Amino acid sequence: MNDLRPDPATARATRERFRNGLTIPTAGMALGFTQCNMISLPRDWAWDFLLYAQRNPKPCPVLDVTDPGSHCTALAPDADLRTDVPLYRIWRHGVLEEEVPDASVAWKEYPDLVTFLIGCSFTFETPLRQAGIEMRHITMGRNVPMYLTNRDCRPAGRLHGKMVVSMRPIPADRVAEAAMISGRTPAVHGAPVHIGLPEDLGIRDLARPDFGDPVDIRDGEVPVFWACGVTPQAALMASKPPFAVTHAPGHMFITDVPDTHWQV
Amino acid sequence: MNDLRPDPATARATRERFRNGLTIPTAGMALGFTQCNMISLPRDWAWDFLLYAQRNPKPCPVLDVTDPGSHCTALAPDADLRTDVPLYRIWRHGVLEEEVPDASVAWKEYPDLVTFLIGCSFTFETPLRQAGIEMRHITMGRNVPMYLTNRDCRPAGRLHGKMVVSMRPIPADRVAEAAMISGRTPAVHGAPVHIGLPEDLGIRDLARPDFGDPVDIRDGEVPVFWACGVTPQAALMASKPPFAVTHAPGHMFITDVPDTHWQV
Repeated sequence: MNDLRPDPATARATRERFRNGLTIPTAGMALGFTQCNMISLPRDWAWDFLLYAQRNPKPCPVLDVTDPGSHCTALAPDADLRTDVPLYRIWRHGVLEEEVPDASVAWKEYPDLVTFLIGCSFTFETPLRQAGIEMRHITMGRNVPMYLTNRDCRPAGRLHGKMVVSMRPIPADRVAEAAMISGRTPAVHGAPVHIGLPEDLGIRDLARPDFGDPVDIRDGEVPVFWACGVTPQAALMASKPPFAVTHAPGHMFITDVPDTHWQV
Repeated sequence: MNDLRPDPATARATRERFRNGLTIPTAGMALGFTQCNMISLPRDWAWDFLLYAQRNPKPCPVLDVTDPGSHCTALAPDADLRTDVPLYRIWRHGVLEEEVPDASVAWKEYPDLVTFLIGCSFTFETPLRQAGIEMRHITMGRNVPMYLTNRDCRPAGRLHGKMVVSMRPIPADRVAEAAMISGRTPAVHGAPVHIGLPEDLGIRDLARPDFGDPVDIRDGEVPVFWACGVTPQAALMASKPPFAVTHAPGHMFITDVPDTHWQV
């Protein structure tokens, strides 16, 4: 009856591959299902983070928050947040300690972790591609390029940091359409925060992103910048909470929620 | 240069009238400026409430959160949240104790109050009226009718409760347009949650709203229901925190932010 609705079995099967050890970036995987950025913090830091997200909704649109210690989310009831992301990062005092495919030990060390799932720009890549707008990083088989900007986020409690953006080169005559299409999903970063003029964001060299991989920019294309869910990791580096778990950039948590759910 | 942008002096002047004692509903006042629902809770309850709002974004879209004890908001830098709402409600253990035009004493009794400003459906009334869709409660000079529904909000910590909706009768041939226009401002309740069939929401008699005033429904009109920022007051009644301050329904906090800011 619901022929046009994507089958959640696809999302479940993809998570199972990650749970079993596959560690690859998720761009273009389980197409049509919402992917999320993840950050888990000790309970004592949860208020500061939720407030930071509320005050910076473009880079940090919160889609779900777990109860303390829980590794379950309403966005994918049968998922396990400790194992179902392809690659995790473990942070101590703002320093990246290691990347691991299974983060279960973190929940043993900190049994009161609160996990935040944050919208990801991959959600609007599907309608952009359906409109015939090429996603260069997908064509090139790379992770999307991400840059630390000179823009301060609004601080909250002990948390502060700069905004991170993702960049996609778009032909000049399709930039407006890309802005409008992505703007229809405000819950997952929405419209671009900056179009053209990377130097205004403090980005010196587009060929050297701070996260992810560089992509080709062709004649007639404009770099378009969207607020990015890696922004919480920049806040970790700047604010140095004692402990955190995040996804590795580009290695997202895949939910059972169709991308279309977030369209207004 | 900015001729089409509404002048924040209007919002400031309106707040000053309330600060000086005027106690009337705010529908249609300081037209073009965002109005907010307000709830202030002791610091100890702030996490539960922010989580409740995150889990119930349609009725509880948070536009700003103050630091503990602060009576200032980024939405209106020169405003004083203790005095600038026309009418406040003081709650103890889930019971409405009194309505007062000045809530300053509350901040003396609870110096760590955290204040949440929540989007209000008045924001999309302006574009609805510009489209020629009548707002019956404004025509009738009444407060918008609001109803407690049978729909549970997703609980968070100690907070739980039913969703409250506001209702506007709309001609059947304009209902779709009303849904689309309001849907363009998802940060302030967005599209309706229910169209027609009030009995499905547990509403027995539209002529007897739980908050606000009844309005006439004419032949050819359908009752359209939007999630309402009075929902936190229903959570107070159900969850009984020791203390809270809110606005009185329909007596909103007027900000300096143009309504158009929330359009996607």
